Amino acid sequence: MNKDWIADEMRKMQLQIVKELELLDGHEKFTEDPYTREEGGGGITMTLANGKILEKGGVAFSKVFGPVSAVMKQQMNLTGNDFFATGVSIVLHPYNPFIPIIHMNVRYFEMDNGEFWFGGGIDLTPHYIVPKSAGVFHRRLKSICDEFDPSFYSKFKINADDYFFLPHRNETRGAGGIFYDHQNDLSILPKERWFDLAKKLALSFPSIYTEQVRLANNQEYTQENIDWRNIRRGRYVEFNLVHDRGTKFGLVSGGRTESILLSMPPQANWVYQHKPSVSSLEKDTLDGLKKGIDWTEM
Amino acid sequence: MNKDWIADEMRKMQLQIVKELELLDGHEKFTEDPYTREEGGGGITMTLANGKILEKGGVAFSKVFGPVSAVMKQQMNLTGNDFFATGVSIVLHPYNPFIPIIHMNVRYFEMDNGEFWFGGGIDLTPHYIVPKSAGVFHRRLKSICDEFDPSFYSKFKINADDYFFLPHRNETRGAGGIFYDHQNDLSILPKERWFDLAKKLALSFPSIYTEQVRLANNQEYTQENIDWRNIRRGRYVEFNLVHDRGTKFGLVSGGRTESILLSMPPQANWVYQHKPSVSSLEKDTLDGLKKGIDWTEM
Repeated sequence: MNKDWIADEMRKMQLQIVKELELLDGHEKFTEDPYTREEGGGGITMTLANGKILEKGGVAFSKVFGPVSAVMKQQMNLTGNDFFATGVSIVLHPYNPFIPIIHMNVRYFEMDNGEFWFGGGIDLTPHYIVPKSAGVFHRRLKSICDEFDPSFYSKFKINADDYFFLPHRNETRGAGGIFYDHQNDLSILPKERWFDLAKKLALSFPSIYTEQVRLANNQEYTQENIDWRNIRRGRYVEFNLVHDRGTKFGLVSGGRTESILLSMPPQANWVYQHKPSVSSLEKDTLDGLKKGIDWTEM
Repeated sequence: MNKDWIADEMRKMQLQIVKELELLDGHEKFTEDPYTREEGGGGITMTLANGKILEKGGVAFSKVFGPVSAVMKQQMNLTGNDFFATGVSIVLHPYNPFIPIIHMNVRYFEMDNGEFWFGGGIDLTPHYIVPKSAGVFHRRLKSICDEFDPSFYSKFKINADDYFFLPHRNETRGAGGIFYDHQNDLSILPKERWFDLAKKLALSFPSIYTEQVRLANNQEYTQENIDWRNIRRGRYVEFNLVHDRGTKFGLVSGGRTESILLSMPPQANWVYQHKPSVSSLEKDTLDGLKKGIDWTEM
């Protein structure tokens, strides 16, 4: 299982995911945009805009390698000279405020000194939290994790709660999910199984999201719901530009800006001191943006 | 000229600016939102939304003091134990894409060990660069600077070019302006004159912006112009959340989020790989987003 094979597999995952998301959307196709990176490697960014369900979606594959830059050394605490990284990243922004935003990422990193690790995760950002739907989502993630190790779901769920958090808002980004990084302990799983976990997450992604879309069941929405969706999208922007390590690292290390900012919503709004009324779906959502909620019980 | 007097003066500047901006807008009034800061001091944030000319505007006054936190020590390289800071910050987002976004900030900082400094600046972010209008703007700034020191304008203009720059886009934020920080050299100006410079900038602000509004002369605009405005506003968001030192510092140091993010536009859009056509006003604007342009010659 060498690194180029892993990258080829990642590319296949991207294509499979795109195929299934096109079926889900039923209207628009993804456009393929390949690029090369001066220092080595490149990527294929696939995007969709103005679909039937998805207003903006990106499924990005990358395979990059070359000398470790000063910024990488400092920020990632690396010891080797050359690195190799490959992965698939997804962010989908639907029109319907009752369908959640979703994010997935799986990645593999290897150094020329033989060190390697896997990382990944899926998390859900409902504009309106529906506990039952968040429950369905978390139970799917738990059942995937449980195939690999019974301790994974609860550990990775806590990671997601901690990572997808906006301290300046004292809010989680959404209903959480799972998140893991720097996993290479072969006493827990052999390397092949760490890869299988990433692959399983990636290939489960379309059906996990399709389920969320179906649960929203074409629920009708008003301009008020759209306004709220746009404010929540603003929070998504805040998280990604202020806190997200991948985004920050990508932007300062000279990554490909358009691929890094694929996660940006098509539109986001900011309203000074916006406060939902006391008994409202919006207020319920704010109350649900907390760490430590056991969504599998919902 | 003690620190409390300076803070009182800052508050007066805020009120004067607000009064004149209300006359400019001619429709909406600013709403006053005072707050206190747990560790000492507070502020008065004044905002306007859905005016006739201004879609969203904020004029924030703050006077904060107290113990220097660990984050401040680290990020600001401070030696004393207690600090005092006061200032006025403005960002205005107009409806009309042919009227520029504008930003102004003047601030005074003092440590318990007697150290002090002034900072400030005004910069213009046209959605569409109109060289003649950028020229009017820069000549106004130059003439203010020249009253204090003939070297100021060119030094502070370079500072603004360097500071208001998005490396990940290889674009300046707009047509620049002036920016200065940490000014306390009494061999250049006595303290009173450093204060006078801040005051002069603040009190000139309404007429500087009124001039820019008049130059746009109610120019009619299309949906295409609005779409472009929203993309440019997206870049404004990127600058403020990824690069702006004040915003980053405010958010990580536990400042008041709603006041810090007053600068966010009412709406911002992101379109993957948006490229204006070869001969277009949009393309001309991108070509003008460069450091080192002598706008005073336009």
